[in-house]
Amino acid sequence: MAKVNVDLQRERDSCSFNITELTHWIDGGIEKTEERRKREEMALKEGIHIEPVPSVYLSHKEKYELAVKKACLLFKMIRKLQEEENAGMENYLAVLGGNLGAAILGDGNPLTLHYVMFIPTIMGQGTVEQQAYWIGRAFNLDIIGTYAQTDPADGPSEDKWKTIAYNQEQHFTGPARSTSCNMAVLGGNLGAAILGDGNPLTLHYVMFIPTIMGQGTVEQQAYWIGRAFNLDIIGTYAQTELGHGTFVRGLETTATYDASTKEFVLHSPTLTAYKWWPGGLAHTANYCIVMAQLYTKGKCHGIHAFIVQLREEETHMPVRGIKVGEIGAKLGMNGTNNGFLGFDQVRIPRDHMLMKNSKVLEDGTYVNAPSSKLAYGTMMFVRVMLVNDMCKYMAKAVTIAVRYSAVRRQSQPKPNEPEPQIIDYLTQQHKLLVGIASVHAFRMSAEWLWLMYNNVTAELEAGDMERLPELHALSCCLKAVSTDDAAKCVERCRLACGGHGYMLSSNLPLTYGLVTAACTYEGENTVMLLQTARYLVKAWQQAAAGNSLPPTVSYLGELRAGRRSPPWDNTIEGIVKGFHMVASGKIGICVAQIEKRQNNGMSYEDAWNMTSVQLASASEAHCRAILLSTYYKENEKQMKTVSPELRQVLMQLCDLYVVYWALQRIGDLLRFTSISERDIEQLQNWYEDLLIKVRPNAVGLVDAFDIRDEILNSALGAYDGRAYERLMEEAMKSPLNAEPVNQSFHKYLKPLMQGKL
Amino acid sequence: MAKVNVDLQRERDSCSFNITELTHWIDGGIEKTEERRKREEMALKEGIHIEPVPSVYLSHKEKYELAVKKACLLFKMIRKLQEEENAGMENYLAVLGGNLGAAILGDGNPLTLHYVMFIPTIMGQGTVEQQAYWIGRAFNLDIIGTYAQTDPADGPSEDKWKTIAYNQEQHFTGPARSTSCNMAVLGGNLGAAILGDGNPLTLHYVMFIPTIMGQGTVEQQAYWIGRAFNLDIIGTYAQTELGHGTFVRGLETTATYDASTKEFVLHSPTLTAYKWWPGGLAHTANYCIVMAQLYTKGKCHGIHAFIVQLREEETHMPVRGIKVGEIGAKLGMNGTNNGFLGFDQVRIPRDHMLMKNSKVLEDGTYVNAPSSKLAYGTMMFVRVMLVNDMCKYMAKAVTIAVRYSAVRRQSQPKPNEPEPQIIDYLTQQHKLLVGIASVHAFRMSAEWLWLMYNNVTAELEAGDMERLPELHALSCCLKAVSTDDAAKCVERCRLACGGHGYMLSSNLPLTYGLVTAACTYEGENTVMLLQTARYLVKAWQQAAAGNSLPPTVSYLGELRAGRRSPPWDNTIEGIVKGFHMVASGKIGICVAQIEKRQNNGMSYEDAWNMTSVQLASASEAHCRAILLSTYYKENEKQMKTVSPELRQVLMQLCDLYVVYWALQRIGDLLRFTSISERDIEQLQNWYEDLLIKVRPNAVGLVDAFDIRDEILNSALGAYDGRAYERLMEEAMKSPLNAEPVNQSFHKYLKPLMQGKL
Repeated sequence: MAKVNVDLQRERDSCSFNITELTHWIDGGIEKTEERRKREEMALKEGIHIEPVPSVYLSHKEKYELAVKKACLLFKMIRKLQEEENAGMENYLAVLGGNLGAAILGDGNPLTLHYVMFIPTIMGQGTVEQQAYWIGRAFNLDIIGTYAQTDPADGPSEDKWKTIAYNQEQHFTGPARSTSCNMAVLGGNLGAAILGDGNPLTLHYVMFIPTIMGQGTVEQQAYWIGRAFNLDIIGTYAQTELGHGTFVRGLETTATYDASTKEFVLHSPTLTAYKWWPGGLAHTANYCIVMAQLYTKGKCHGIHAFIVQLREEETHMPVRGIKVGEIGAKLGMNGTNNGFLGFDQVRIPRDHMLMKNSKVLEDGTYVNAPSSKLAYGTMMFVRVMLVNDMCKYMAKAVTIAVRYSAVRRQSQPKPNEPEPQIIDYLTQQHKLLVGIASVHAFRMSAEWLWLMYNNVTAELEAGDMERLPELHALSCCLKAVSTDDAAKCVERCRLACGGHGYMLSSNLPLTYGLVTAACTYEGENTVMLLQTARYLVKAWQQAAAGNSLPPTVSYLGELRAGRRSPPWDNTIEGIVKGFHMVASGKIGICVAQIEKRQNNGMSYEDAWNMTSVQLASASEAHCRAILLSTYYKENEKQMKTVSPELRQVLMQLCDLYVVYWALQRIGDLLRFTSISERDIEQLQNWYEDLLIKVRPNAVGLVDAFDIRDEILNSALGAYDGRAYERLMEEAMKSPLNAEPVNQSFHKYLKPLMQGKL
Repeated sequence: MAKVNVDLQRERDSCSFNITELTHWIDGGIEKTEERRKREEMALKEGIHIEPVPSVYLSHKEKYELAVKKACLLFKMIRKLQEEENAGMENYLAVLGGNLGAAILGDGNPLTLHYVMFIPTIMGQGTVEQQAYWIGRAFNLDIIGTYAQTDPADGPSEDKWKTIAYNQEQHFTGPARSTSCNMAVLGGNLGAAILGDGNPLTLHYVMFIPTIMGQGTVEQQAYWIGRAFNLDIIGTYAQTELGHGTFVRGLETTATYDASTKEFVLHSPTLTAYKWWPGGLAHTANYCIVMAQLYTKGKCHGIHAFIVQLREEETHMPVRGIKVGEIGAKLGMNGTNNGFLGFDQVRIPRDHMLMKNSKVLEDGTYVNAPSSKLAYGTMMFVRVMLVNDMCKYMAKAVTIAVRYSAVRRQSQPKPNEPEPQIIDYLTQQHKLLVGIASVHAFRMSAEWLWLMYNNVTAELEAGDMERLPELHALSCCLKAVSTDDAAKCVERCRLACGGHGYMLSSNLPLTYGLVTAACTYEGENTVMLLQTARYLVKAWQQAAAGNSLPPTVSYLGELRAGRRSPPWDNTIEGIVKGFHMVASGKIGICVAQIEKRQNNGMSYEDAWNMTSVQLASASEAHCRAILLSTYYKENEKQMKTVSPELRQVLMQLCDLYVVYWALQRIGDLLRFTSISERDIEQLQNWYEDLLIKVRPNAVGLVDAFDIRDEILNSALGAYDGRAYERLMEEAMKSPLNAEPVNQSFHKYLKPLMQGKL
């Protein structure tokens, strides 16, 4: 290993706690750390992740082609490994999940779900016979499977078709697997893959096959799943259209039944009806699940799923009536091959409608499906996973920025003294250290949410749906706040690196691209906050009616009862309590506002809309209270087993996080608690003091995230701190540097100068 | 013209004011509008801006080559126009400035400065003989000139070399040109060009020639300027290094005088001494101004400028001892050809040191220069321009998002009613409408700052330096706050467009790339805020000593005098006053904190650092107070001449802006004024009411910014509202869509599936 930068080495030498102990604690034990490292080594040793010319220098088209190539090579490697060692499936699960997948594929791994969802689902839910047949084939990669869902984001009513997909998740809630293991497997870049915004192959496994499994009849499954598993066909899943995203009921594509030929006619009546965004749709898939409005006997029966052939199986040419292509360059994720799809009166046989639930009989009679009790499941699952993903991205960004800030020296505040490491500036500590604490806060909140998710889904299995709305409300606001906080954290880290953070070789811009995408996908964040607000308003009204409330909103009832502000308690516990008072106060104001507006003659919907800025803010306040209290409580609980040295640092981090947010929300605290100016000044000094206390351990704290250089992929943030050397090494990979004189000199500059252009 | 979207047309039809009247008001009169439109038409009619394959699909290398090509074609066109019509220079000034330049070149126009700075400087400061000689040549494009500066950002002490460059700006302060005209000319993307982060040719004109003019002796100018003007050589300007940006004194490159050979030896003693970032350095320039530590007779005399040959003039190959190349891909501005440069004992003649000020005699004796009285000028000038640039970017982003929000319909809050335009959601109004107001707020603040800049520089000419520190403090914090606000505004607009905002064809990601770069260049924002804080602390201390204060900080003295909070006044005037109280209160706390920490034994520097998070916040509060009061006062003044219909809307916008910021800073107002909970709830309802009032005019308000489609360059934001059609048209330009089947299908996917990979 190359020599480590002396400043960075000194930081490590003077760290007050054992870095390895913290890594084990984060992973959930020394065995977990060792397993993870072994898997990382296994996946990286063949060097598929290495790009001779970094993809940032490639054209859009070349980026797509590289993504396909790497995904295929990765799967070849795994197949080989599988043959060599008879290692358990679990290894591969983890190889493909987390930051590791990102290191190899950059923009996501199309085949992750094969191991992460497909095989486990069969193991969890298949009969012994089914397992015998499928698992062997799957491990040999004779077939490639996967699983996932998109997110209509406006409640359960559109999600009937998700029932089965949801059931598949039950595997993960089984007692045979620990929560933390599943978290690790499913975290990191997997989110992108699940969400259909990953690489060109993802949707075949993530959406196409699972939808057939979930909504197809036994006959349909028998016919299609086999072909799909054999990769005789490659499918994708087309739901969103140019004109409609989250609002699924508004989709315009029609599937009209023609009883005379026993066919459905798929049609895009408008340009806005064109499917838009599905991954792999552009040039990869030849079949597609299409979500369309079903018409039969002149009546619309809402959204149903149809299997449509897009391209000729042999030639890959689009079939008649199909208009298909890619949607163009994006801020990030440019290997995905997101596509568009339009239909010009495309006819498909009647049995290409997936009819496990609703049916259309030969004569065109529509037979409705029984409604599902488990409709919320999948989207909650995905959102729980997203919270954990956000931790990984924040951990990457803060690792890069902290290490660089320890290496970088700048300015000379005191004459005749050396330039300080920029991490010694309090303003820099202010930008970065809360980012370290945020990783822990969101990690513990994600674990806590995961546990709750498991409990609630177990209750669901037993027919108990009581806590479903509470979990749904939580998953919505945590999705919004975690993605928003993560995006801001990553961008703050980038800007804290100054101009060099603007270099793609810092890996901060690409990381931002991945994180900010999550602010609008899987439920746009403002829509998410307002979903939670609906629940909070109902909870408030229940409390007003004297009913008891579920645990995470019980504070509404308690605080409502005692309206007078108690004396302010300037401690962590006091602040956490203060945040509950803020949330309660804001929700109360919203409820009063809506009522007042209704009394003034507004409809409920208009009153809601007029109050929606405040409602979103109340929802965010509720989420902050949950985050602060969860972090505080979980931290107290989990750090009981660690050494005193580490415990002190973990407490400081939690204190830092809570005090930071108190100072960020001083206005709210002043409005809804009895905090005084004197308290505020004390909090400010407490915060400054905490920055100074945490600062000496900053490098140790990010080292403990234990992100390998190949996964971090940053010139500024590598473990050895050779930031400047690596910036130069990365620069030398630019194709422009491959030739001393560029052709444009001869072609344009010289002629212009000589008046000959 | 294609049919306009009906929703958009209805918005325009129902606008309560005359949109054209507002456009004229913004431009500064109907003649200004007509001039601007004529110039835009002239520059765009040849279609140089049209890219058959949009550059977003190109490789990094191709992007550079396209930028060179377009810059050269643009100059060819202007030369032709110049020959055809004997139009005045002024036309070309405006063609090259503003958003128009961006429309043609995307990432900035390398030759802008030729017209904007070079020719005007000669006209303003040249003798009659000089003008006769140079101006003719310049207009014929026999020579190409320009002018600019970078920004050391840590005070005047390093800026002696800027004296002459600063003098050149005086041309713009002359009475012959109105402020608003200059603003228009210099606004928009020109900022990027001035800042050295533009296209490959920029620095030749922006830095290389002006530095020689500013720091060269008459003999040096005679020799070098002629060659540079003839483009016999292409130069750039290398100051920043891998290891040092804003802190110029820390530069490591050495220039050691060897009296035995009468040469300087340039050397990069470390990797961090490598020059890093200069535009055009990588493959475009063959000469370079190098800023280096001057050593002679064993003693260091600080940073001086040297002319160094980089490449052979005929072959363009790097000369011996020169290591040069490009720094690699960045978040944006990838046509710039930013380079690195290292020296291995490179010898240059003694007369390659620019010796107008300081000198090294033949025997090695160093002769110091008299210090400059005008050191602040250039960096203030650039920052004033930056504030105006930020308006242009915000205007673009908000135009795109507002039009799209009028076209987009989504969800169904009320059963059996059509889907609303998303701009009818209050949360969407909350995200967008303050953006419209911000454009006006920053525009008026920039104009006001420009006027103050002119006054102060005129006083400087007369030897009066009294208001220089005040102007410097203002330009620092306004630079930081305007770039930060603009970046947040653009990103909020992008996210408000949902998934489609993530498409590069929305032009929002590229706009963000340009704006966020300004947060770290030309003085990193936190450093800027702390510079202003230094001034505020001094002002506070002066007030404490009973001295009077300059106008923009006089409130500190007034509020200090009456420490008791007056009763809160819940009006616009009351809020503006409240913001002054906030700023004053925060500065007061900072001063007390620093004193307390010093009394506890800390050095001043350490006490400053420990208080710096609060100091940055106080500085921002000062800037907010300036922005709110300036907008309010200027708006009151300027809207006197407009129609009653327009006046009402302009008042609503200003109210919206002020109330928005009051609600954003409720915590500060609660701490430092006597605002009550009741006042806050009234403000909230006032704000909601203003959103509803401004909403019907939203489209008219952005239309009035009058940004041509070619300049807006957005599928989502075009004037006709055909957002979906344009998204599709842009998608069809993707090279991936040029072939129905991509080669990767045959190369990797099929073989993997068949087990043959």
